[in-house]
Formats: sequence, structure tokens, C-alpha cells
Amino acid sequence: MTISDTLAKLDIQLPPAPTPVGSYVAATTSGNTVYTSGMLPIVDGALCCAGKIPGDVSVECGQTAARLAVLNGLAAIEAEIGSLDNIEKIIRINVFVNSSAGFFDQAAIANGASNTLVEIFGDAGKHTRCAVGMAELPLNTPVELDIIAEIK
Amino acid sequence: MTISDTLAKLDIQLPPAPTPVGSYVAATTSGNTVYTSGMLPIVDGALCCAGKIPGDVSVECGQTAARLAVLNGLAAIEAEIGSLDNIEKIIRINVFVNSSAGFFDQAAIANGASNTLVEIFGDAGKHTRCAVGMAELPLNTPVELDIIAEIK
Amino acid sequence: MTISDTLAKLDIQLPPAPTPVGSYVAATTSGNTVYTSGMLPIVDGALCCAGKIPGDVSVECGQTAARLAVLNGLAAIEAEIGSLDNIEKIIRINVFVNSSAGFFDQAAIANGASNTLVEIFGDAGKHTRCAVGMAELPLNTPVELDIIAEIK
Repeated sequence: MTISDTLAKLDIQLPPAPTPVGSYVAATTSGNTVYTSGMLPIVDGALCCAGKIPGDVSVECGQTAARLAVLNGLAAIEAEIGSLDNIEKIIRINVFVNSSAGFFDQAAIANGASNTLVEIFGDAGKHTRCAVGMAELPLNTPVELDIIAEIK
Repeated sequence: MTISDTLAKLDIQLPPAPTPVGSYVAATTSGNTVYTSGMLPIVDGALCCAGKIPGDVSVECGQTAARLAVLNGLAAIEAEIGSLDNIEKIIRINVFVNSSAGFFDQAAIANGASNTLVEIFGDAGKHTRCAVGMAELPLNTPVELDIIAEIK
Repeated sequence: MTISDTLAKLDIQLPPAPTPVGSYVAATTSGNTVYTSGMLPIVDGALCCAGKIPGDVSVECGQTAARLAVLNGLAAIEAEIGSLDNIEKIIRINVFVNSSAGFFDQAAIANGASNTLVEIFGDAGKHTRCAVGMAELPLNTPVELDIIAEIK
């Protein structure tokens, strides 16, 4: 089963690849490693929600935001390497969580991204990760994350 | 002298490798690079201490926490690649310090990890690092850090 | 045109390579990838400015700080690999912005680094990046950033 098949089965439609304005790119390849920029949970050009978790954005919405951000990252990788079937495995995600004071469950938010990767790639989606709590994030996004993956 | 010999000489006993529950892993290998997840200063299943440095946790305890976290990372790498003697060198650590307002000595905390790596690996333990101050961290850990290393 | 020519044309003089004191290094190479440590906007041994953006340090000064930090990173890479002409491309920068509460334009600060890389390296300077807002940073620096680059 191809990743396209899996996405269809999961009823996941990848968003259009993000196109950064300026001096940086959404994804780049070095050897057989592909890196994405920090991805935000942007849907149709706007953040799905904004603010700190859980003060402004619930844990559940934060998990959805992490899932949306990881799908944007996969769209960037697809645009960079041609097909998600060329991914050998996911190496790393760094999950930056916009955290209200006293919020210690960054792992729960990161699971929104991690679980999505395993749904799509199976064992090849099992990755290392850092999940940390940020003071502020661009555009007041609740989550920013980047992906590093190995290419076949 | 093997790394096992060095650990014995330093009276360091590596903890059991951490076993993340869920969709991610403690360490993964890509080519001759091994990456760990963000490691916490967990000893016998519990954080060694919790809170912000220096408000809740002293600088000295923070340094110990960084040392414990790096040992957990090395345990994860050993489980992934079989033996720490297979490490060619340590490439990078990212040290996330749970920082009280006005605390600017994240480097002192990171030294708890950096010095441990050089004690164990000698010149091969000299690495690049980022040390930064976080708003919050998972479980209210005082320190989280990840390791990237080159394999022989 | 060599990178040295470009630097001269842009009237950029690289600072001396930073020399960390202790158990870590300013840059290290693994295969054809070079990593720097987190770089600060240090000029002649002192931070160009200190504090949070924009409360203590203006956005414009923060952009200059990001430019200075990236030049320190390039100096570290030059010392590590011999010549910036050996850079194939810039892979990644992580930009940690010391952010006042309610500051959401970490991207503007990161542009100070990103634009400098493209001025110097052209298309080979186009990189992926993460730009995030920190609670605190070492020495109260307004910006810390690291570079990952591919070597020819």
C-alpha cells in the first residue's frame, strides 16, 4: 500500500505545500536527509487557533493543531522530494508548545503529531522527538514543529 | 580503554534505557547518525527534582539534573546501537533549561551535561550545543536535552 | 566569485571565530554536515545589546543581533572547515528569540539572519528555519541561533 493509499484510507488530504516568503524555504534535502522549517497549524491561509495552551486553546485543540502542523510539514516534504513514498523513516520532530504558566503536558500536544506520523507511516513513522514549552511563538500559534526524515 | 571501562572507573552506572510509551522512540539511527528524544533527569521512574532554576531547583541540582538526563540519553543510544564504543563522536546537544525569570546562566546548567560527555568520551565527547531558557517543560522537569552522535 | 569576494563586496568582515571555554566546541563536522553551537550577537567580546524584544531591544536591533549571531556562526564554520567556499548550502538555522510577553514576530528577527545568509551565499543560502520565542537566554542575549550546513 502506498502512502497515497494510506492517506486516502485515513481520509487525510494533504494541504498545499507551504511557500515561505523571503530568504528561507519550507524544506531542503541534504544527502538522504530532508529537513522542514518550523510548521504552523495553518489551514486555508490562517491559523486554526491562536494563543497559549491551555489558557487560550484547549489541549484537544492543541493536539489538532499539532496534527495540522505535521500535515503541513509532510506537504512540504512531498513538494521537496516528489512523493511521501520516498520516505524511509521519520527521524525527528521538535514540537514547540505555546504554554500557559503551569502547563506541563507538552507531551500530550506532541502526541497529536506523533500519532499522525505513525498512522500514516506505520513503524517507519516512529521518530525521536523533543516537546518543550515556549514563552511565545510566531503569530501566536499554539504549536510550531519541524520534521527531519530519511529519504530512500 | 573501552567506554565501559571508563564508566566503571568514573563509577557511573548507566540507567536502564528509557522506553517511551506511544508513537515515538528513545533513539533512532539514520546513516551513521544517531538521534535521541528529549531526555529528562528521571531516576528510578521519577524526576530527580522539579521546577524552575534557580527559583525551585538550585543551579547545582540543575547541573546534576543535566548530568542525569545525558546519562539517560547515553543509555538510549547504547540500546539503539549496541555499545557506546561504537560512538565516533558526540555532534550536538540541545539543552532546554526551565528558567526562572531573570535567570541567564543556562550555560552553567548545560555544563552538567557537557562535562559528563567529555569525562566519558574525552575529545570525542566535545560537541556543539545550544543552551536556552524555557517557559515550561514536560512534567515540570528542570532540564530536558537531546543528543545527536556520530556512529563509527 | 568566491565567498571572500562576496563578503568584501558586501563590506562584511567576519569576526574572529568564537572559542567556547569548556567542554564544547563552536563547530563540528560529521560526514559532509557541519553544525555550530548556539551563537550569540557578541562583538569584540560583548553582547551588542541585551534583553527582551521588543521591551528592552527594538525589533530593528534584534534583527541586527540576528545578523551578528549568524556572522559569528559563519566564522565558526570557516574555522572548522577552512573556507566558506566549501559550503554547498545552508541546511537549517534555529533562531531563539528572547521575547517580551505578547511579541509574535519572531520571524522578523529571524529574517536578520536569513537575509544575511542569502546575501552571502545566494540560492545556496536558502535554508529551513525554526523561529521561536524564549523565556530567557544565556547572558540575557536578545537572540541565539545555530547553523547546520552541507559541505562540498
